[in-house]
Amino acid sequence: MSLTNETHDPAARSWVASAQDAASDFPIQNLPFAIFRRQGSEEAFRAGVAIGDQIVDLAAGAGDVFTGAAATAAAAGARDSLNDLMALAPEFHTALRLQLFHALREGSEKHSHLEPHLIPQAQAEYDVPAHIGDYTDFYTSVHHATTVGKQFRPDNPLLPNYKWVPIGYHGRASSIGVSGQRFKRPLGQTKAPDSETPSFGPSKRLDYELELGWFIGRGNPLGAPIGIEKGEDHLFGVTLFNDWSARDIQGWEYQPLGPFLSKNFASTVSPWLVTLEALAPFRVAFTRPEGDPQPLTYLDSESNRRVGAFSIDLEVLIQTASMRDAAIAPVRLSRTNAARAAYWTPAQLVAHHTVNGCNLRPGDLLGSGTLSGPEAAEAGSLMELTGGGKAPIELPNGERRVFLEDGDALIIRGWCEAHGARRIGLGEVSGIVEAR
Amino acid sequence: MSLTNETHDPAARSWVASAQDAASDFPIQNLPFAIFRRQGSEEAFRAGVAIGDQIVDLAAGAGDVFTGAAATAAAAGARDSLNDLMALAPEFHTALRLQLFHALREGSEKHSHLEPHLIPQAQAEYDVPAHIGDYTDFYTSVHHATTVGKQFRPDNPLLPNYKWVPIGYHGRASSIGVSGQRFKRPLGQTKAPDSETPSFGPSKRLDYELELGWFIGRGNPLGAPIGIEKGEDHLFGVTLFNDWSARDIQGWEYQPLGPFLSKNFASTVSPWLVTLEALAPFRVAFTRPEGDPQPLTYLDSESNRRVGAFSIDLEVLIQTASMRDAAIAPVRLSRTNAARAAYWTPAQLVAHHTVNGCNLRPGDLLGSGTLSGPEAAEAGSLMELTGGGKAPIELPNGERRVFLEDGDALIIRGWCEAHGARRIGLGEVSGIVEAR
Repeated sequence: MSLTNETHDPAARSWVASAQDAASDFPIQNLPFAIFRRQGSEEAFRAGVAIGDQIVDLAAGAGDVFTGAAATAAAAGARDSLNDLMALAPEFHTALRLQLFHALREGSEKHSHLEPHLIPQAQAEYDVPAHIGDYTDFYTSVHHATTVGKQFRPDNPLLPNYKWVPIGYHGRASSIGVSGQRFKRPLGQTKAPDSETPSFGPSKRLDYELELGWFIGRGNPLGAPIGIEKGEDHLFGVTLFNDWSARDIQGWEYQPLGPFLSKNFASTVSPWLVTLEALAPFRVAFTRPEGDPQPLTYLDSESNRRVGAFSIDLEVLIQTASMRDAAIAPVRLSRTNAARAAYWTPAQLVAHHTVNGCNLRPGDLLGSGTLSGPEAAEAGSLMELTGGGKAPIELPNGERRVFLEDGDALIIRGWCEAHGARRIGLGEVSGIVEAR
Repeated sequence: MSLTNETHDPAARSWVASAQDAASDFPIQNLPFAIFRRQGSEEAFRAGVAIGDQIVDLAAGAGDVFTGAAATAAAAGARDSLNDLMALAPEFHTALRLQLFHALREGSEKHSHLEPHLIPQAQAEYDVPAHIGDYTDFYTSVHHATTVGKQFRPDNPLLPNYKWVPIGYHGRASSIGVSGQRFKRPLGQTKAPDSETPSFGPSKRLDYELELGWFIGRGNPLGAPIGIEKGEDHLFGVTLFNDWSARDIQGWEYQPLGPFLSKNFASTVSPWLVTLEALAPFRVAFTRPEGDPQPLTYLDSESNRRVGAFSIDLEVLIQTASMRDAAIAPVRLSRTNAARAAYWTPAQLVAHHTVNGCNLRPGDLLGSGTLSGPEAAEAGSLMELTGGGKAPIELPNGERRVFLEDGDALIIRGWCEAHGARRIGLGEVSGIVEAR
């Protein structure tokens, strides 16, 4: 059985001209979802699907364009979040994707029905794509865990549970914003290593974390674990995600119950949710280094080993306030690939999260944790890139950074490439640090 | 300024006869809120206020009985959660309390208007009182932190941050149920100290945690901390709370990011939310032991020191399946008082939670953490009471417990007593462990 189908045909073209642009993140093979409205308008937020530089206003076009399960799914997009659409069974999403694909394809007889429901992305503003009932952050990069572990616990960087347990913890849902989020530098307690007592003030070690955000589709009832073979049926899609972190607050507060105020002041998600179906051509084998323990049975399956990982290229860029003023483009801080970075697959995260009976609900968010690849230049945070703040990064205009300064904009981009497949993108997530 | 007013008058009597019962948790001085409907009915869940053994159907009576701000507040109770009512400014809650008090008082001219809107508690079923957007669990008992710390980290029981930082972490909102919740024993990874590798199966060290649950009323915008002097304006009220915990899963998973699957399989809240106003006569001074560091400025205020703590008596009882079969009443495991147990006040929790800019929303839940008092017999968990599972507890029918067995019911009760005040109660929260 092939995971790909006609919607992945790299030769397929849309009548929306911009979708043919080789650099577009949103060709007809992608079709990601967002919650949007016209910028500055008082319109209700609603679901849209990206095609080239346009947005299909999903529910508005539903009556004319979609039938059966696809019409049900499109109508669910009339709400101000994707939750109702996410809650539908995967066959509804598949039906909608297929009908969207046909309607947007060159020569489609639906062209004239759908065209009036296109809105330029340049005229849109976005909201967080779902009401996030619970947000869980994982820690899937063994490279990140090892490098950061060395800074917090020099003698004991990678804890003995790491290769057995997909380590995760609950994060804050209320402070998750959508790309473009601006937030004030957090205040908090910190303690210098040479000080007897803590002090209070704005964080001096403000950092980002390069992550993917996996959104849950259908949930599970309390007490009913989701087996790893069914894990992906409960994943709706993926976004880019920046888990801003105040390292100095984290160092003082995190024991014994984990990060709290060091993380919950803001987290930023990209607007476009790329579905698992769109990601099908970019699946890769999930293998562990020779000598590592094999996962316990509930975290292991043949298909997970064969195609459980997703090859998603990722890059992080910074643009300081001075760079913006001087019209200097954002400069890359690092680049990696999710499949190189992650020690656990999305299906494993779902299986682990629910094995104790915990219930997931539509719209829940699973953060991947910082996706740092094996090489030092592939690190997904400043803490790693600057050796814990010791080795400054030189920027094109002569500025230097060890951690984020007020006015800094941080941008994460993601895309997928594979032989025989049309490149698709996740768009970008950006955010700006404001002075306290 | 006195914090109490006519609604706290211990001599006040209600025309609802059962409210005069000295053992009733719900005299006219209390007036707590719940979300309820008639048991087994298809009615919509809605807000009610307890009086004696009855429930005032709040929105149903609103038109006839309440005026002005109180009518607005009562009408907000027509929803299936208290969130809209909670979101109102404190003066709305005060107005509603006062008009409820007058309407329920002996001799009230509203007697005949309100009586048709009373429903016996014996005929009601309850829901979780709010849609909980985010649930945070704190760790406010220094006695619990020390005792448990000894078991997890014998050399280092109380970490250096404890007396400076109100330690907290984010918990799971989706698995919070209301009193009467039944849940399956969680499955998970555990590792015996003498084993090289983890094993998988049902938890063998299932425990409860005696907590209070403080519900947020009005929220705050992202980036705008709530100062300690305003902290209580954002607290709507308190419930009993049981944070079930699988100690063996916790021990293996909790480093470095804190508890996760060991906690998120179920947590249980009592139906009745006792307001801060009802608690006013039971406020006590908050003092730290001689020699302990004073709280940092943002966690300190004159009024917090003077009346920041709440004297709430608490007890925990167990009834095993065999005890139920033999009609043996639940037996007490421990008893303590919240003010004896907690090292941080509710106002300090709000101030700390938001000092970094984190936003709270109406209906958010702040768990106190396990409320263990200073004496060993005051411990709020089996882990503490049995010395980490080493000293079994003997039950009246000859059974023994170190941790919870399948079929065990665990009950927490809470009440407040003070000189010159009518005793009020929080009711109870119960839950039952089911076999996996």
